[in-house]
Amino acid sequence: MEKTEDLSQDLVKGDVSAPISDQLPSQLKVEPPKTQSPITAVGTKSTAITAGVPAEIDKIESKEIFSEFREHSVAEFFKKNRQMLGFSGKIRSLTTLVHEYVTNSLDACEEAKILPNIYVKIENLPDQHVRLYIEDNGPGIPKQFVGRALGQMLAGTKFHRFVQQRGQQGIGATGGTMYAQITTGKPVHCRSGIGDNNIFECDIAVDLKTNSPKISNMVEYTGKYRGLTIVGEFSEVKYDKSEYAPFEYLKATALANPHAQITVVEPNGERTVFERAHNEVPERPKPAQPHPLGVTTDDLINYSHHSKERKLSSFLTSNFARISDSKVDELRKLCPSINFDKMPRELKWEEAEALVNAFKQIKWIAPSADPLRPIGKEQIEKALKNVLKPEFISISERAPKVFRGGVPFLVEVGIAYKGKSGREKSDGFVGLDVKRFANRAPLLFDAGGCATMEAVKTIDWNRYGLKDIENMPVTIFMNLVSVHVPYTSAGKQAISTEEEIVEEFRYALMEVARDLDRYISGKIRDEQRESRKKAIKRYVKQLASDLPYLAGRGNTPEIEKKLIYLIENKYAKIFDKSTRLTADEVKAAKKEQVEAEIEE
Amino acid sequence: MEKTEDLSQDLVKGDVSAPISDQLPSQLKVEPPKTQSPITAVGTKSTAITAGVPAEIDKIESKEIFSEFREHSVAEFFKKNRQMLGFSGKIRSLTTLVHEYVTNSLDACEEAKILPNIYVKIENLPDQHVRLYIEDNGPGIPKQFVGRALGQMLAGTKFHRFVQQRGQQGIGATGGTMYAQITTGKPVHCRSGIGDNNIFECDIAVDLKTNSPKISNMVEYTGKYRGLTIVGEFSEVKYDKSEYAPFEYLKATALANPHAQITVVEPNGERTVFERAHNEVPERPKPAQPHPLGVTTDDLINYSHHSKERKLSSFLTSNFARISDSKVDELRKLCPSINFDKMPRELKWEEAEALVNAFKQIKWIAPSADPLRPIGKEQIEKALKNVLKPEFISISERAPKVFRGGVPFLVEVGIAYKGKSGREKSDGFVGLDVKRFANRAPLLFDAGGCATMEAVKTIDWNRYGLKDIENMPVTIFMNLVSVHVPYTSAGKQAISTEEEIVEEFRYALMEVARDLDRYISGKIRDEQRESRKKAIKRYVKQLASDLPYLAGRGNTPEIEKKLIYLIENKYAKIFDKSTRLTADEVKAAKKEQVEAEIEE
Repeated sequence: MEKTEDLSQDLVKGDVSAPISDQLPSQLKVEPPKTQSPITAVGTKSTAITAGVPAEIDKIESKEIFSEFREHSVAEFFKKNRQMLGFSGKIRSLTTLVHEYVTNSLDACEEAKILPNIYVKIENLPDQHVRLYIEDNGPGIPKQFVGRALGQMLAGTKFHRFVQQRGQQGIGATGGTMYAQITTGKPVHCRSGIGDNNIFECDIAVDLKTNSPKISNMVEYTGKYRGLTIVGEFSEVKYDKSEYAPFEYLKATALANPHAQITVVEPNGERTVFERAHNEVPERPKPAQPHPLGVTTDDLINYSHHSKERKLSSFLTSNFARISDSKVDELRKLCPSINFDKMPRELKWEEAEALVNAFKQIKWIAPSADPLRPIGKEQIEKALKNVLKPEFISISERAPKVFRGGVPFLVEVGIAYKGKSGREKSDGFVGLDVKRFANRAPLLFDAGGCATMEAVKTIDWNRYGLKDIENMPVTIFMNLVSVHVPYTSAGKQAISTEEEIVEEFRYALMEVARDLDRYISGKIRDEQRESRKKAIKRYVKQLASDLPYLAGRGNTPEIEKKLIYLIENKYAKIFDKSTRLTADEVKAAKKEQVEAEIEE
Repeated sequence: MEKTEDLSQDLVKGDVSAPISDQLPSQLKVEPPKTQSPITAVGTKSTAITAGVPAEIDKIESKEIFSEFREHSVAEFFKKNRQMLGFSGKIRSLTTLVHEYVTNSLDACEEAKILPNIYVKIENLPDQHVRLYIEDNGPGIPKQFVGRALGQMLAGTKFHRFVQQRGQQGIGATGGTMYAQITTGKPVHCRSGIGDNNIFECDIAVDLKTNSPKISNMVEYTGKYRGLTIVGEFSEVKYDKSEYAPFEYLKATALANPHAQITVVEPNGERTVFERAHNEVPERPKPAQPHPLGVTTDDLINYSHHSKERKLSSFLTSNFARISDSKVDELRKLCPSINFDKMPRELKWEEAEALVNAFKQIKWIAPSADPLRPIGKEQIEKALKNVLKPEFISISERAPKVFRGGVPFLVEVGIAYKGKSGREKSDGFVGLDVKRFANRAPLLFDAGGCATMEAVKTIDWNRYGLKDIENMPVTIFMNLVSVHVPYTSAGKQAISTEEEIVEEFRYALMEVARDLDRYISGKIRDEQRESRKKAIKRYVKQLASDLPYLAGRGNTPEIEKKLIYLIENKYAKIFDKSTRLTADEVKAAKKEQVEAEIEE
C-alpha cells in the first residue's frame, strides 16, 4: 500500500474522441478510462511481452465468457443456497421445517380469529428418513390456491400487507416442499378443508426450474375437517432434544403464544401437550398506513404514482398515518416550490425527496399501535412466572416507533432472576439466557448477528450492578413486534441490526436492568442492615442496665425501649421510590414494629 | 406444559367415511384430524358458546383471506428485504456496493486472464448523496447482455458453474442498481468495451415488479477501452474510515489478491494505490466434476435424468470425479439389485439413494484441487509479513475436502504474532484480530454466525498455551476456497456453519496454534535458560580460583574453562524439531561458543 498524490497523469487518458458526458443525456458522467495501461494494448489480442508487464496471451474474450450466461428461478437459487432458508445441519433443518409450518398455522388461525390447536408428530422412518405430520384447525387453503401456497416461492397472502405477521415472505412452506423433494425425492402431501364440508387431499411438488407448483393425486371427499394438514418425508434431518431442536422450539412458541394449544408427539411416542393458557384469540391487528417518519423517497414515489387521488395534498392525507390538513399546511410552508394541488402521479423524485426531508422537520404523533399486537406485560409476566418461577421479574413494553419505510414496531423485554432463570452453561454453572422472539416466533439460531444480542452486548451491565450478568441466573425475554421484521436472511432466525430497533431494545433492557439492580441492591442493603441491627441489638440489654447506674438516673426498661426504637429507626428498611411511604407512614410503621417487638 | 399419555380418545376422530389412505395413491398417509374440537363445529359458522370454549363468532373465512393472494418477483423480495443483500446501515451499505462491484471486476479479470486494475472513486454530493465510480480493465460486457447482467436478478454467468468464483448468485450488481433506484430514483450508468474498438454507454434500471432490465440512453462510439465502468448515485450510504468501511474493505481485498492493483480516491480527494505485489494472474481454475462423496440423492437423480449416456455405468464414470471402471465394479457389488447397464434416466430414487450410501462405503481418492485456486502459503506469508511485520508467522493450507453436493473446498489459515498483529480493542489494548475471506473476498460483517468464527470459538486455546488469545497481539487469517461458498444470506458476509467446513478450519487453526505455542514457549524457555545461565556464571570465577586451593590440584584457568563448558552445555538452546541440529552440530556449536567466550 502506498499513498501518493494524484497521479492521474500516469494513467492513459483513453482514446475517447469527445468528452463522454457531452454526448450523453444521462445525469451521470463517466471519466476517461483510468485502468488502461499503455502496454496491454486494448483491442489487439496482446502484442509483445514488455519487461515487467505481463502479456495477455491467453486472454479470454468477453463473448466466450458470456456464452454461459443463464437466467435462474428463485427456487433454483434457494435450492443451491438452502442454508439461507435455514437448511444447514440436520437438527436445525428439522427445526426450520417445524418452524415454517407452525408459524403459518398460527398466522392463519389468528387471521381467521380461531384459537389455534396445532398437532405436530415426528416419526423416525428407515434409512434415516423422518416423517413430519403437522395439522392445524385453521381456515384451510382453498383448492385453487393450494399449489401456489405450498409449491411456489414468493407467492402468498402476506408479502405485501402492512400488518404484523410471523411469516412475511411467501417462501417458508414451499421451502419445506423443496426440502422434501431434494432429500427424499417425494412431494409433500396435504389435506385441506375450509369448513364447507368438503375436504381435499393432494401431493405437491415444486418445479424448481420454473418455480411453479406440481399438483398430483388430487382426491376430494366430504367430511368435517377445517384446517390444513401437511405430511412430509424428509432426509438430512435428525430429531433430538437439544436446545436447538423442535421440542424446545415448540416450548418457546407456547411461551410466546399462550392462546395456542400445541401437541407434540416425539419419535419415541411420547406425547406432550402445551396447554392453552389464555382463552382469547389476540385481537386481529389492523392494517395501518405508513407513518411519515421513515418513509423513503422511493416509497413516496411508488405510492404517489399508483394513487387515484386527484391532488397531492389529498394523496398525503389519505395514504399516510398522522398527516392531517394542518400538517399539509406545514409541509406547504417547508416546501414552497411544490404544488400540492397537482396530480400525485406527477410528483418528481426531487420533490419527493424534499417532502421526505420536510417530514423529518415536523412534529408527529407517534405511530399507532393498531397494526401491532404485542404479547403484553401481563401475558409475558404470566408466562415467565409459570415457566421460570423467578424470585424477581420486570417487564418493559416500549411505545411504538418506526424504522425505515415508516414501518411501525415496538419491543417487549422481560427480565427474570433466580428460580429456574438462566441456562446451564458448558461449565455446569447457570448463566444468562436470552430468549429471542420476532412476532412471537422463537429465534433459536444465529444469535450473533441479531439486533437483540447486539443490544444486549452494548449495555454497560456494570452500571446496573450486573457486571457479571453472563454468570447470573438471569433470563432475558426479548420480542420484536413489527409489521415487517427485517430478518438477516430468508431463514428468519436473526433480526438485522437496524439502528432504531437496536436502540429500542437498548432502552427496554436498561429499564428492566435498572429494576433488577434496585431489587438486588435493595436486597443486599436490607441484609446488611439487618445483620448490623442484630449486632447492635446484642448490646442493648447490657447498656440499658448499665446506663442508669452510670448516669445515676433513668430506669432500665425505659432505656431499653428507647434504645431499640433508635436502632430500628436507624436501620429502617429504605423503600424504593416507587413504593416509598411518607415520613409519617414510616414513623407509624416503625413505632408499631417497635411496640410489637417489645411486647414479645 | 403437561405430559400425558396418548389421549387420542379425547380428540374427535373426524367424520371421514373411509380411511383416507385407502383412497389415495400417495405414498404418504394422513391421519384422522386431531385438532378439531367437538364444539367448534366445523362447517357451521359457530353455534353456541359453551362453557370454557370460546366461540368463533367473528371467524373469517379462508376465501376472504386468500382474496389477497399475490405473486411477487425476486426483485420485489430483495427490495423489501434489502438487509439480506447487505443494505442495512449507511456505512455497511456503501461497503456492500463496493464489494459487489469489485468482486465482479476481480472475477471477470481472472476469468479473462487479465491482471486486474481497478479504480474506485467515492465522492460526496449534496443532500447526503454519494457517487460511486468503479472502473476495471476486465473483459467488458457485450451489449446484448449488459441489461440482464446489471438489471436482472438471478441472471449471470456464474450461478451454475462448478468452479471457484467470488460472485456466484447473479444478484450483487443488480442489487446495486436497485439500491441506486430506491435511494435516489436514478439508474446506474455504465460504460463497456470488449476490446473490439467499440464502446457503449447506457443507463440501466430494474423493473422491480417483473425483475427485468430497463435500458435507456444508449450511446455507442469507437475508442480504445476494454473493461466495465459503473457510475452510480446513492443515498442512505455514508463514507467514513471505520474498520467496516470501503477503505478497509479494499485494503483487505488487496491483501488477499496480491495480483490486483486497486486505486481508491476518497471523498476528500486522497488517492491511495494498493500496488500489485505479484505479476501473475492466478491460474484459471478448471471446472471440476462433482466428487462422489457428498453427492446427494437429488443431485444424482438430476444429473442422471439429464444425461445423454446410454448406460448407468458410463454415466457414473463420465460425470463424477474419481469414479473409474473398477470403482463401478465395487458399486455393483455393493448394490447387486441395480442394473448398471440401464439408461441413466431410468434411475429410480431408491436406487440413487442406495448408490449414494454405497459411495460412502468406498475408499476414494481425495477431490482434485483443479477447480480451486488457493492464495497459497507463499503469497499469504508475503502479504502478512508485508502488512503486519510480525515476529512469528505460520500458515496452514489443508488438502481439498468436500461438503454437501460433492462441493470441493479447502481452507487456508495463517497466524501472525507481534509486530503490527492484532487489533486495537475498545479498552485501548491490542487483542486478537481475525481476518475472514471467502474466495479471497473479505468478509467484514456478521462474524457471529460465520463458520470461521465458529471454528475459532471451539478451539481450546488453553491447550496451546494461548489461553488469553483474545488479549494477545495475534492476527488470524482465514480463507475459504470453494467452488460454492454457502453464505448465510445473499449479502455474502458470513459462511454457513457447515460441519465439514468448520472442521477443516479447526484442524488448520490447531496446526498454526501448535506452531505459535512452540515458538512462544520456546522463547520463554530460552529466556529462562539464559537468565539461569547468567546467574550460575557469576560463581564461575570464584569457584575456579577456590577449587585448586580446596582440592590441592588443578589450575584456575583450566577449571574456569571446564565449568563454563559444563554450564553452556546444560543450558544449551533447544532448537525446535524443524530446525534441530544433529548432536554433533550442537557439540561443535557449543564448543565454538565456549572458546569464543573464553577468548573474551
